[in-house]
Amino acid sequence: MFQNRMPRYEILSADAMATLDKGWRKLMTEIGVEFMDDRALDLFRKAGQRVEDRTVFLDPDFVLEQVAKAPGEFDVQARNPEHNIHIGGDSMAFGAVYGPPFVREGDVRRDATMDDFRNFTRLAQSFPVLDSAGGVICEPNDTPLDSRHLDMTYALQTLTDKVYMGNVVSGANAADTLAMTSILFGSREAIEETPATISLINCNSPLRWDDRMLEAQFEYSGAGQPVVLTPFILMGAMSPVTIPAALVQQIVEALSGIALSQLIRPGTPVIFGSFLSNIDMQSGSPTFGTPESGIGLLCTGQIARHFGLPFRTGGGLTSSQVADAQAGYEALMTMLPTFLAGANWVMHSAGWLEGGLVAGYEKFIVDAEILQMLQVEFTPLEIDEESMAFGAHEEVGHGGHFLGAMHTMERFRTCFYRPMLSSSDNYERWLRNGGKDALTRAGEIYKQRLTDYEPPPLDDAIRQELEEYVVRRRAELGD
Amino acid sequence: MFQNRMPRYEILSADAMATLDKGWRKLMTEIGVEFMDDRALDLFRKAGQRVEDRTVFLDPDFVLEQVAKAPGEFDVQARNPEHNIHIGGDSMAFGAVYGPPFVREGDVRRDATMDDFRNFTRLAQSFPVLDSAGGVICEPNDTPLDSRHLDMTYALQTLTDKVYMGNVVSGANAADTLAMTSILFGSREAIEETPATISLINCNSPLRWDDRMLEAQFEYSGAGQPVVLTPFILMGAMSPVTIPAALVQQIVEALSGIALSQLIRPGTPVIFGSFLSNIDMQSGSPTFGTPESGIGLLCTGQIARHFGLPFRTGGGLTSSQVADAQAGYEALMTMLPTFLAGANWVMHSAGWLEGGLVAGYEKFIVDAEILQMLQVEFTPLEIDEESMAFGAHEEVGHGGHFLGAMHTMERFRTCFYRPMLSSSDNYERWLRNGGKDALTRAGEIYKQRLTDYEPPPLDDAIRQELEEYVVRRRAELGD
Repeated sequence: MFQNRMPRYEILSADAMATLDKGWRKLMTEIGVEFMDDRALDLFRKAGQRVEDRTVFLDPDFVLEQVAKAPGEFDVQARNPEHNIHIGGDSMAFGAVYGPPFVREGDVRRDATMDDFRNFTRLAQSFPVLDSAGGVICEPNDTPLDSRHLDMTYALQTLTDKVYMGNVVSGANAADTLAMTSILFGSREAIEETPATISLINCNSPLRWDDRMLEAQFEYSGAGQPVVLTPFILMGAMSPVTIPAALVQQIVEALSGIALSQLIRPGTPVIFGSFLSNIDMQSGSPTFGTPESGIGLLCTGQIARHFGLPFRTGGGLTSSQVADAQAGYEALMTMLPTFLAGANWVMHSAGWLEGGLVAGYEKFIVDAEILQMLQVEFTPLEIDEESMAFGAHEEVGHGGHFLGAMHTMERFRTCFYRPMLSSSDNYERWLRNGGKDALTRAGEIYKQRLTDYEPPPLDDAIRQELEEYVVRRRAELGD
Repeated sequence: MFQNRMPRYEILSADAMATLDKGWRKLMTEIGVEFMDDRALDLFRKAGQRVEDRTVFLDPDFVLEQVAKAPGEFDVQARNPEHNIHIGGDSMAFGAVYGPPFVREGDVRRDATMDDFRNFTRLAQSFPVLDSAGGVICEPNDTPLDSRHLDMTYALQTLTDKVYMGNVVSGANAADTLAMTSILFGSREAIEETPATISLINCNSPLRWDDRMLEAQFEYSGAGQPVVLTPFILMGAMSPVTIPAALVQQIVEALSGIALSQLIRPGTPVIFGSFLSNIDMQSGSPTFGTPESGIGLLCTGQIARHFGLPFRTGGGLTSSQVADAQAGYEALMTMLPTFLAGANWVMHSAGWLEGGLVAGYEKFIVDAEILQMLQVEFTPLEIDEESMAFGAHEEVGHGGHFLGAMHTMERFRTCFYRPMLSSSDNYERWLRNGGKDALTRAGEIYKQRLTDYEPPPLDDAIRQELEEYVVRRRAELGD
């Protein structure tokens, strides 16, 4: 997996950090956080926190004590050990888009289906830059609502051999995910020893954790599976419009969720989550790839490191409806700061379109290209005597060219990144090849990838046991 | 003009810098630099440098002595004082694309004309984020080769009131530019006191300065006008394929040109130039927006600061043939590092397409949007008690929304960047509005901008004097 050994780009001064520190402590103490789950309220009450109705007024120092119990780094196992990942430190792990109810291929935008879900899962498997297909890579609207988590989990387990995310729609869904994961990895003990899922627990920002998400959190944290405690903030709607206010709110929300995980099971792995952008103040629409989201992203990294926590942020986000120039620059406007910040767990790394409502096939390819480029760009240069290539200058001389130089011949295959999607064809050649723009070429690439896809091998007995589980549970759920 | 008060992102360690330092000294001493101009060779000879044939074997310490004579920062005046610019320090000045023989509007790619030149100049005037239309914003192929520099300079002087670049095709062209600039600013003394042009002197890399460029350099440096001494390096063709080798070569070329300027006129302003990308090793095509160019860009900033020189690099570069997703991400792949590096003079900031062969109307708008976004993103956050917006939380409470909060109402007009091109319309609204992608919308925007354009006022007597100069010189040149 990718290790980001480049420097972090940090933009908050020590004074700014101190001001934010005072800010989150005040907000946490005086406004507090709502938890819509009695077990959570009980845990906080027993730990000596003041609880009024469903609001917990947390003591910041108590929260930091809980946070300190969480590991700074941890491993997550995949069924193919080559795809195990490490969360934290210099490691960056990338998962595909999560949550869209629609898909787009070419000019067609339509409801996502289970076939789409499987196709995107196959695409994620086929790109080494992706460490995970994610979880709800799209909503398979043609499958029954109550049991689709079984179909999705089965697809993630069988069509990829990478890490996958757990279903969080309810506690029961989480329990199903854990049961299926226990089958895939041999036992519940095996996954409690080294976690095998990552799950996204979103805050109902501002300052409220909802019941269904908390149910899932109890399941996953109880099983020692990492959860990404993620304030879901579109500034102007779910937070004040000022970025510092959003940052402070984000700290309160994330840390309060993390504290709960540590009360559920001390030492259980957590990820400081961030989903931070803003709305268009004229239309109220969510906007992505904005300057404000870029700033928020850089600050989030610095803040998470301050608390010694691995963190999630970034991705290839865009508001654009299609994979056009806007989609290109907005995706990079979030993904480049994601690398500058050194995010450890990056959701929505490929396929995000139209503010997350659409999983785009072509956009998936655009994002994979961007990811590939950035992984090269964020690999430190080796600068030594040999890299100066003095001999090449002796060979070529003034005004000459290096195309045929020995130094070039020895390195030409690997010296530069080789694009998958980007074209540098000269105009005549480009025209001869059909004059295709990046959108058209991306369409060809994803189709070819799906044609070339080969499922990773899986033990027949395990596959059968998974299938039996799905069939049984589907029947129990009445679907 | 834009001040970049954000931290610089520097990726070279002290060890790496020391290795590069040894490298450029060795290359300069042992391989030397060719100057295809006898006056240049004489100046170096008289200054005690070893000259063999046309190659100058420069003493690195002598070169650093010359470099130390150049100002670290300086002003350039525009005919509208509000558009004066400062080169160096935190200042970043942005000019439009430079040099394309072709233009693209929509599906049409064709030879550039003088009308295109004027249109792009008008567009540059209309965007506050651009400090200059640049120079050869496109090659007006419908005007006579010998005198087109007069038409271009006249257009830059009259259709904009911003800083413009000087023609460098020959010493005579440079002299014409200086004469016309002296007319516009009242006298030769006026522009020698505060320079009024910036000119691009490209190296014929590797390690050769050609005669025509040097002729122009003698004119401009002799008149105290800043020149941008720019190694023109596509790694694999004009330099070895290793980035450190390209960086070392870039230092030798830029510093040797800068030393010459200081011999021509000690203290004349210069800019450490960089145009650094790579070729596709399969096709030999130049490629832009690559990971390698991004790395080179970040290093260049650090190196120029090491020598205490203002520097030029970056822009909105792309290999793409059209303003598609590739154009979007490649443009940002160079422009975001341009901001991270804090480049002082940024050419090709708007309109660059197809490896610089095409000035794209729609791409101009894409780039202007990117520039606007980055200028917001690279403005430091104000983090204070008030920005925490504690009162807004008291007003809204848990799970509420901030759309109608007092804090929001007071700030909604200015709190977030308002896009010009990017759309966050929901799908239904986007469809109702024609389902236009960014390319289509950009086409509408540039046409509206041209319709709305108003020429900046110019004194009639000066305009007449400029016109008379152009008419007279055109006749002398036989056109």
